[in-house]
Amino acid sequence: MIPTIAWQDDYVVMIDQRKLPFKESYVVCKTPAQVISAIRNMVIRGAPAIGVAAAMGLALGAHRIKSQNRSVFERRFRQICEQMGCARPTASNLFWAIESMQQVVTDNPQASVEELKQLIRKKADEVLAEDQAINQAIGHHGQVVVPDGATVLTHCNAGALATAGYGTALGVVRAAWEAGKNIQVLADETRPFLQGSRLTAWELQQDNIPVTLITDNMAGYLMSQGRVQLIVVGADRVAANGDVANKIGTYSVAVLAKENKVPFYVAAPLSTVDLSVATGKDIPIEERDPKEVTHSMGRAIAPHGVSAWNPAFDVTPNRLIHGIITEKGIARKPYKKSLKAMKTQSA
Amino acid sequence: MIPTIAWQDDYVVMIDQRKLPFKESYVVCKTPAQVISAIRNMVIRGAPAIGVAAAMGLALGAHRIKSQNRSVFERRFRQICEQMGCARPTASNLFWAIESMQQVVTDNPQASVEELKQLIRKKADEVLAEDQAINQAIGHHGQVVVPDGATVLTHCNAGALATAGYGTALGVVRAAWEAGKNIQVLADETRPFLQGSRLTAWELQQDNIPVTLITDNMAGYLMSQGRVQLIVVGADRVAANGDVANKIGTYSVAVLAKENKVPFYVAAPLSTVDLSVATGKDIPIEERDPKEVTHSMGRAIAPHGVSAWNPAFDVTPNRLIHGIITEKGIARKPYKKSLKAMKTQSA
Repeated sequence: MIPTIAWQDDYVVMIDQRKLPFKESYVVCKTPAQVISAIRNMVIRGAPAIGVAAAMGLALGAHRIKSQNRSVFERRFRQICEQMGCARPTASNLFWAIESMQQVVTDNPQASVEELKQLIRKKADEVLAEDQAINQAIGHHGQVVVPDGATVLTHCNAGALATAGYGTALGVVRAAWEAGKNIQVLADETRPFLQGSRLTAWELQQDNIPVTLITDNMAGYLMSQGRVQLIVVGADRVAANGDVANKIGTYSVAVLAKENKVPFYVAAPLSTVDLSVATGKDIPIEERDPKEVTHSMGRAIAPHGVSAWNPAFDVTPNRLIHGIITEKGIARKPYKKSLKAMKTQSA
Repeated sequence: MIPTIAWQDDYVVMIDQRKLPFKESYVVCKTPAQVISAIRNMVIRGAPAIGVAAAMGLALGAHRIKSQNRSVFERRFRQICEQMGCARPTASNLFWAIESMQQVVTDNPQASVEELKQLIRKKADEVLAEDQAINQAIGHHGQVVVPDGATVLTHCNAGALATAGYGTALGVVRAAWEAGKNIQVLADETRPFLQGSRLTAWELQQDNIPVTLITDNMAGYLMSQGRVQLIVVGADRVAANGDVANKIGTYSVAVLAKENKVPFYVAAPLSTVDLSVATGKDIPIEERDPKEVTHSMGRAIAPHGVSAWNPAFDVTPNRLIHGIITEKGIARKPYKKSLKAMKTQSA
């Protein structure tokens, strides 16, 4: 299992995903500001992993607050939470993690500052530990939709590196593989950040699961040739109606799947489902530095001075989604009902 | 105007499109084998430009045949034509150009070897000169479908660099711009060879036509946001029924255009229309070196040893195409009838 994020003494250590697969190096975060920066700069990415990193970053922040005065502590902790909430705008898990950590404070009105620090750290440890278990449950529920002999296409990286381990979309792949199914994976390279070619291909190679790399614009052609039997992707935020924000290009894959009658599934923990957002239209879509588009791995691929757009996510409407695979089972249409039932059950 | 290909004394000179936009260097071809190699290695690319290069390469080959015996000349010239036909498999214009040059031999049964050499060179000069005029006619007919104020999306490079000058899809853009329409272009980067980011962006920048670069997987999202009013692409081969083989990813753009009700046009000279091929299923699709996918501009973007697929083209079915803009006007459905009429008219 690839270590995405871990405690090392009282510091948060992450594998630097910007450098993979060419270099296995680690970033050590000693302050919540360093964790925020690591999230923003994509040292760590993937909605569940961002949630875990935020929880751990807040525990780090709580630990570093010097005051023993509870109301001073609460105010400072709230400030750190607010800063953490600005790290990236789209992934639901970031806000879910922040709320979960703040809930510890609310739920323990009599606790001393030292007790709160311990409870917050305990909660962060739980978020970290639970994420792997949740992914294994997603894999367990999801692998039933993977036909034996299938070629499974995925976009971006919703794998061990996007989570505390095992993965969501790749958790489904891993569970199908562990169940003895003879499958192979088609990985979209996922420009501009190349999560598919750098991370998904590397992860699957490490696990000896057959993987073939393609450019993003090849997915449709291969579907039209009958060479894709299933599509599974992750999610950054799922609206109450089942619209899914995920890595840019996911919407295109979903439209091409519909055109070619290939089942299209989303795999995500319920922490990615945001019932406070009615539809995908209300999900904020991050726009990142155009330099990511005019460059590839730091090298210019376009003439100097050319304009570029860089929306990091898109929204796939619920009608294009066959099912949303969660740790509680597969949510089906109408999602408004099925997702709400699962969230209530999990709460 | 950017010089794609030209005679320099008795040699064929091409701008090296592998190096653009970072370096303006030229490849000088002194033998037909060097022209074949330049086509195969994509020093020059784009169906019309490949046709022009083939014609000029054959004239070069004819010039170098030493025998004054006509039947020996014919046999040697036929061999060179056969070798030229193996340069790349998909672009129709290559085969059209070879046939046009062979026709010169057939049409002049009494000519001496020296006369044939001159006639062949004259024909190559005509192919070169006519291509620009054809592109301007394509622009003239096509620009009427470009709404004032439109954002026009294009894939790959069907510009001056893909032709003897002016371009097919970008010919339509240039003609609309010259007609005073306030338009802007969205350029898909077009992995793996990056014709969009390296060539289309550069060409338009040189002409001061507003251009914004996106990754291939952003096109669908921008269409869904109502930010694209028209799509125009080139073609490598058009079947008798109007199915279009073009750069990998074109099919995906066409499906996304249908989903989002954006008009999708193809711009191509009639030399790209191959009436001998009934449907797109019969068009051979080139598969290129997987290294183009595992690398970007020569640099690895994936773990060592990973598998990759690299189909260089895909086929867009005629039902997804609003019109095929040729030098004789815009062919509309049913294409079997309209294309045949135009081809007959042009012959």
